[in-house]
Amino acid sequence: MNILITAGGTSEKIDNVRSITNHSTGRLGKQIGETFLAQGHQVTYVTTPQAVRPTAETNLKLIVIETTKELEVTLLKEFKHQTFDAIIHSMAVSDFTTETTLSEDIFIEKLAAKLTKENHLSDVTQLTEALYQSLDEIGKTAQQAKKIPSGTDRLLLFLKKNPKIIAMLREQQPQAVLVGFKLLVGVSTEELIRVGHSILVKNQCDFVLANDLEDIHDDQHKGILINANGDTHSAQTKSEIAQLIVKSVEEKWRNQ
Amino acid sequence: MNILITAGGTSEKIDNVRSITNHSTGRLGKQIGETFLAQGHQVTYVTTPQAVRPTAETNLKLIVIETTKELEVTLLKEFKHQTFDAIIHSMAVSDFTTETTLSEDIFIEKLAAKLTKENHLSDVTQLTEALYQSLDEIGKTAQQAKKIPSGTDRLLLFLKKNPKIIAMLREQQPQAVLVGFKLLVGVSTEELIRVGHSILVKNQCDFVLANDLEDIHDDQHKGILINANGDTHSAQTKSEIAQLIVKSVEEKWRNQ
Repeated sequence: MNILITAGGTSEKIDNVRSITNHSTGRLGKQIGETFLAQGHQVTYVTTPQAVRPTAETNLKLIVIETTKELEVTLLKEFKHQTFDAIIHSMAVSDFTTETTLSEDIFIEKLAAKLTKENHLSDVTQLTEALYQSLDEIGKTAQQAKKIPSGTDRLLLFLKKNPKIIAMLREQQPQAVLVGFKLLVGVSTEELIRVGHSILVKNQCDFVLANDLEDIHDDQHKGILINANGDTHSAQTKSEIAQLIVKSVEEKWRNQ
Repeated sequence: MNILITAGGTSEKIDNVRSITNHSTGRLGKQIGETFLAQGHQVTYVTTPQAVRPTAETNLKLIVIETTKELEVTLLKEFKHQTFDAIIHSMAVSDFTTETTLSEDIFIEKLAAKLTKENHLSDVTQLTEALYQSLDEIGKTAQQAKKIPSGTDRLLLFLKKNPKIIAMLREQQPQAVLVGFKLLVGVSTEELIRVGHSILVKNQCDFVLANDLEDIHDDQHKGILINANGDTHSAQTKSEIAQLIVKSVEEKWRNQ
């Protein structure tokens, strides 16, 4: 099979020396990659600079990206000349990217200037409307500094939505067995399965691997693989999760 | 001599899976550490998880921290039982830490509620005053989510000032030869020296190493070491910068 794996975590630049980073060691992705390679599959592996990754003499194409935008562009390029039998989208993709960063002083100056142009600001509905419009204009038009000045007590960082990569994957590669990932923090097993299945339905995945940050400790890594029928299989280590995903993807591909 | 070196870059948590990271490979700090160790000095080396660091069998005490707050606490603890002859503060320390993160909707709701309590909002001075007060209250009191919800188009990240570590270093260890660092982006040599010297005066450093991000390419690393008289010495590689700092610090210590 021809497999695409995304792993690691994207970063979004704030300025030339700072960024917002999604933490991911890449260790689970590495295990999944190595397990597919051991079965003789061809693997295109897209990862980020800080993450660990599989090594192999053959059958492995490695691509390193940093931002969500770069991930999108890179994948669309691959899809022009590769068709994948399965896609394992384990990368922690930033939901938001930096729009602009402003000192409190400049933000308030801009906001006050915009609001005083309006009338009837004592009416809460009209004020709310004016605030939405002002924030939108400030976010979209404010100039971003090369390096954030340190001489202000408070900074406001405007973040805007990134494109949803998982939706693009299903749209571009409708034939692929698609495995999505959902990481939650401190929820019950029932809630984990409920949210995981809703993500599966929403993004038209074949499987979702749901896990909880509080159940990940080095190699101990509790994961629940959910399929479209809502059936679940549990694993207790990264190695078990990798085996479970590879076996389930192979089966699904043979039967489709 | 008993030397303290800080290197790497601090991170500030946004939530359980994201943080704001100051990029620093730690390679210059490693070179400086190894050069001091090679001269037989005792080195306490404080760094961050992602950064490279010196290795040595003896004379090296390694401490790993993540946030600026942890750095402050760790250093104050060391100062209780160690007196340093020199401090090389090369760590990229975040000027700001996360105060709170709000979706645009919740931010506007809170802001509108606060503003409509005020009168005379058509007057720009009073509106500005009300905005400062509202932002301050929102920043200080808004509840932070465990993991940022993805269902909003725009997020607002409130960042507040971190304590100034360099000022604390001079205050706590007045006897030490203190070397500060200043990184700028895309400025002239004259500007680099001017800003570097003003940082030296402001923070009562003995030396400041001023460099420009655009003049750093792998081992090529242009740096200017400025002393209290405004004299400058240039270096072209990380190794040359390390030699220059060690030599200058040793001389200054012998003559004081």
